[in-house]
Order: sequence, then structure tokens, then C-alpha cells
Amino acid sequence: MALKNIKTIAFDADDTLWENEILFRNAEKNYCSVLSEFQSKEKILSSLLLTELGNMEIYGYGIKAFVLSMIENAFIISDKKITASQTSLIIDIGKKMLKNKVILMDGVKETLSALYGQFNLILATKGDLLDQERKLKESGLLNFFSHVEIMTEKHEENFKRLLNDTETHADNFLMVGNSVKSDILPVLNLGGHAAYIPYKNTWALEYSDSSKIENDRFFQLKNMREIPTLFSGSGKQNKRYTRNVK
Amino acid sequence: MALKNIKTIAFDADDTLWENEILFRNAEKNYCSVLSEFQSKEKILSSLLLTELGNMEIYGYGIKAFVLSMIENAFIISDKKITASQTSLIIDIGKKMLKNKVILMDGVKETLSALYGQFNLILATKGDLLDQERKLKESGLLNFFSHVEIMTEKHEENFKRLLNDTETHADNFLMVGNSVKSDILPVLNLGGHAAYIPYKNTWALEYSDSSKIENDRFFQLKNMREIPTLFSGSGKQNKRYTRNVK
Repeated sequence: MALKNIKTIAFDADDTLWENEILFRNAEKNYCSVLSEFQSKEKILSSLLLTELGNMEIYGYGIKAFVLSMIENAFIISDKKITASQTSLIIDIGKKMLKNKVILMDGVKETLSALYGQFNLILATKGDLLDQERKLKESGLLNFFSHVEIMTEKHEENFKRLLNDTETHADNFLMVGNSVKSDILPVLNLGGHAAYIPYKNTWALEYSDSSKIENDRFFQLKNMREIPTLFSGSGKQNKRYTRNVK
Repeated sequence: MALKNIKTIAFDADDTLWENEILFRNAEKNYCSVLSEFQSKEKILSSLLLTELGNMEIYGYGIKAFVLSMIENAFIISDKKITASQTSLIIDIGKKMLKNKVILMDGVKETLSALYGQFNLILATKGDLLDQERKLKESGLLNFFSHVEIMTEKHEENFKRLLNDTETHADNFLMVGNSVKSDILPVLNLGGHAAYIPYKNTWALEYSDSSKIENDRFFQLKNMREIPTLFSGSGKQNKRYTRNVK
């Protein structure tokens, strides 16, 4: 069965349109090297995750929040024995991340080109305002989107406001993203459609199981290139995606 | 002469609706105490300003950016002799700022109440997304605003998009704020109206002279309470604000 009423498609950005998590994983590797004299990689990273979680309410998402948590965690891990020179390397890791070249995910440009004109395309992401704007400009994708929404959280109420601001009915709305927790569940709860494209690395704080979702407005795809098949409804193309209905 | 065609009034937030700069000034005092063994207050702060300026492009505005610059500057000032315990105090200064109680400026609630219903009120601010949202919720002012825009910069193009998104003609738009550079000049350039309410402390990177503005869409007020007088046009009330026309 093909999706018939979709007018607006919203895309998550990080790890849906462009690589992001890999940047954090690489930064963590370098961070562990800086702290290698104090602790094992495993202990450094499990403690970092706790520090990030503890700071989430006041720091939120994004690279600056991550760097501040890395520094704080370095004091914990080193029992405040880390030198200023070492801490300064952590600042450098963050600055390098903020200047990182944007790498698009496979099939993004082709897919957006194919959908553009047929659908109203919008970008709906969380994270740091400045960094997301920078990446969007650098990505060359800006002109595909009629609306860009950078939110502090992707909760139901945030999507509700987005639908309201863009005068979109949930019935006509499809969200595409790589986080079950942030992109899929809140949109399904509002009566919208959601296409989940799993990413190879998902941050522990974003991970949520998709196997239990039973909803005929939920679709699981392997790749951005499969999005147009959602609308074609031909049997052959239909097999290219898994519609998660028992 | 009274302002006749205004339909939408946009308000800057920091130091227009609530105190902000004082928070940074107090943080700087504590920061200088942490670094007092290395340098004089004057040298620490002039170097901090340069560090902030150098980081502006990648860090942007807001408290997290400020904390990262404070840490980086502490390494410069101390020639990397600062201890982790001392650096940890800088992190604490930032966390305290992010939990700070919102203090409304004089007359804000009364003025917004008086304008509400007569005008479409919107909030247009820059800074950190999460921190501005937190302050807005805490301020109790959220319900006055039909639209909230948190931007990375207040350049002409950003205001142009805001007018577009809110379907507002520049002729019908009044911006109220404490920064000539960010709130006044870009709006005047777009053909909108602007009311400047100077704040006692203006950050060096925001300072711009208002005395040379010659534009009959520009108004300088002493206090938020004077905004309604812009629309009344009675001679007596008219005297309460300075219309900056030679």
C-alpha cells in the first residue's frame, strides 16, 4: 500500500542527512588518549556518559555541551591531577569538531532532489543553533527546505508546535530520522507518519528499540534512497522497505 | 505624532525583558578572583574579550561559549599554570549562571499586559537556544508571545526571514531592544520601526553609538513603560520619549 496523503516531509539532520555520531566517536578516542595515564578507555567513557547525562538539563545537546562535560569528566577521572596543557588539548578537540567538514549520508542529495517540488520539505533537528546552521549552509542542502526548525528537544509538544507553525495536519506529515526516541515515537503519538532509517552508531542516550512498534504509520527503511518507494506503492518497490505491521 | 500602522511588536530578551549583562559582569568578578595570582583584573578581562572575539565564529553567543572562552583565556593568563581545581571553579561559575533566577526589568509585565491583545507580540533574541527557552519559561512571559524566534545573529537577513515567517510587513513592525547594532540598525534598514531602550551596562561587543541615527522610524525611550506612549500621540505623552530627528 502506498502512502497517499503526505504533503510535508520533515528530515532529522545529524546521522540522517549528514554524518555526526562518528565525529563524537573520534573525539572520544582522542579524549581517551589525553587521559590514558589516568584510566582505561572503558572507565573514561562510561564516566563521561554519566557526566553528560548529569549535565543534560543545563547544557543540552551539541558540541559545546560535550566539551564542557569532557573537561568536567577529566577532573573526575584524573582526580584533578590533569594539567592545563592536557585540558587545553580537550578544548582543541572541541574546536576541531566545530570546524569539521560536513559529510552527507548516502543518497541524500539525489533523494531530496527527487522529492523537491512534489512535497514541502522541512528540516527538524535538535542541537546547537550555531553549529546546525553552519552545517546546513555547508551541506549545500539549504535551498531544499521551506522551513528549518532547530529545537532544544524533540518531544511531542515540540512537534505539535512545528505542525502548527507550518500549518500541517498530522495526517499529511511524514518525519524521517534515525532516532526512534526523538524522530519516530513523538510523531506517531501525534497521528503523523514516521520513517525510521537506523544508523550504524547510535548514541547511548538516543537508543530505543524499534522492534516493538506496531503502527501502520511506521516504516523502517535501510537508506534515504528508499523514501520515494513509500509513495509509489508498486509491489516491487514495496518490498524494498519493511512495513512494521504484525 | 503617534505611530499608526504598527501591528506587530518584537522584543529583544536579554537586558530588554530581563537582566542578563549583570550576570556576566558578576561571573567575570568571580573569574578574576580565581585568576588573581596570575594577572590584574584589567589584563584578565581585556584578554578575555579578545578570546571571546576570536571564538565568536565557532562558539557564538551564550553562557556555554562564555565558559569555554573563560577556560581558554585562563590558560593564556596563567601560562598554563592554572590547576585543575582552579579550572573546575570556572566550570562552577558557568553552571551557576545557567541556573540563575530570571529577574525582569522594570515595567515589563505591566507593559506587555497593556499591549497584549492590541498588538501581535513576538520575542526575537539571540543566544543559546536551551538557556533562552529556560529563561522564557521561568520569566512567566511565555503566553504573551505568539511567536518566539531565537537566532544565531541579528543581521538584516535574519529579521527579513522573521518578517517573512510571521507574514509581517516592515511598515507594520516595531522592534524594541537595548542594542543599537542588533535590534535597531538592521530593522531600520529593512524599513521597519525601532525603539531603543539603552541599558546601563552594554557588552563591549554589542556597543554602538545611537546619537548619529537620523531616521523618523527611530525612537529612544528610557524604559519599557514608555512604549504605549508611542501609539497615543498626545502632546503630553509625546514628550516622554525622545524622537531622534534633527
